[in-house]
Amino acid sequence: MRNFDSDCIFCKIAKGEISSEIVYQDEFVTAFKDLSPVAPVHILMVPNGHYLDLNDCAESDKELLGYILLVGAKIAKQLGIDQSGYRIIVNDGPDAGQTVFHLHFHLLGGRPLAFKNQ
Amino acid sequence: MRNFDSDCIFCKIAKGEISSEIVYQDEFVTAFKDLSPVAPVHILMVPNGHYLDLNDCAESDKELLGYILLVGAKIAKQLGIDQSGYRIIVNDGPDAGQTVFHLHFHLLGGRPLAFKNQ
Repeated sequence: MRNFDSDCIFCKIAKGEISSEIVYQDEFVTAFKDLSPVAPVHILMVPNGHYLDLNDCAESDKELLGYILLVGAKIAKQLGIDQSGYRIIVNDGPDAGQTVFHLHFHLLGGRPLAFKNQ
Repeated sequence: MRNFDSDCIFCKIAKGEISSEIVYQDEFVTAFKDLSPVAPVHILMVPNGHYLDLNDCAESDKELLGYILLVGAKIAKQLGIDQSGYRIIVNDGPDAGQTVFHLHFHLLGGRPLAFKNQ
């Protein structure tokens, strides 16, 4: 696992230096409510270490990456949207609208989600 | 790795029984062009074995899941969109509009992608 970056907002949230509504946390992952939710459930899941984005991940990070997806499925169950459905999104770079350069996964659900205009 | 399901369209594509525009394939993953693209780059990545969705994955599948994300980053580079940006999406269940019940990851890019109306 990477170290934290002392200037990164998501690192600060994972370390508890900035308060947020944390819905799940363990040794590897921190999940918290997005401050500007676009759906009734909108959670951000971040590794507890500073990765810029997917391009910044190596082959050796595959377990961590897959684990984050499984944490997403676990949170979906915890929040009661595992059967109604949920979407997990990773945005990498400008065309995807990535604004915070600490790898993060969006977990969305709680209503029917559009797709075709993405 | 799971077995294929003989009735599943994505299993048939991964086995080569149904033709598709495959952009990447190895022992674990098959990636092919979406037949109804919503962006200039729209690739589907599927495990070479039948998993219904993320809910159907176990802790022991985390390496495979992370590997698929890294294959997405690799394909993005191969297609020249790793710097302009790309999005990877997993849809699980009805609210996410999942229509084929073989776990698949959308890789989107090649233009600015919207986010807020999802």
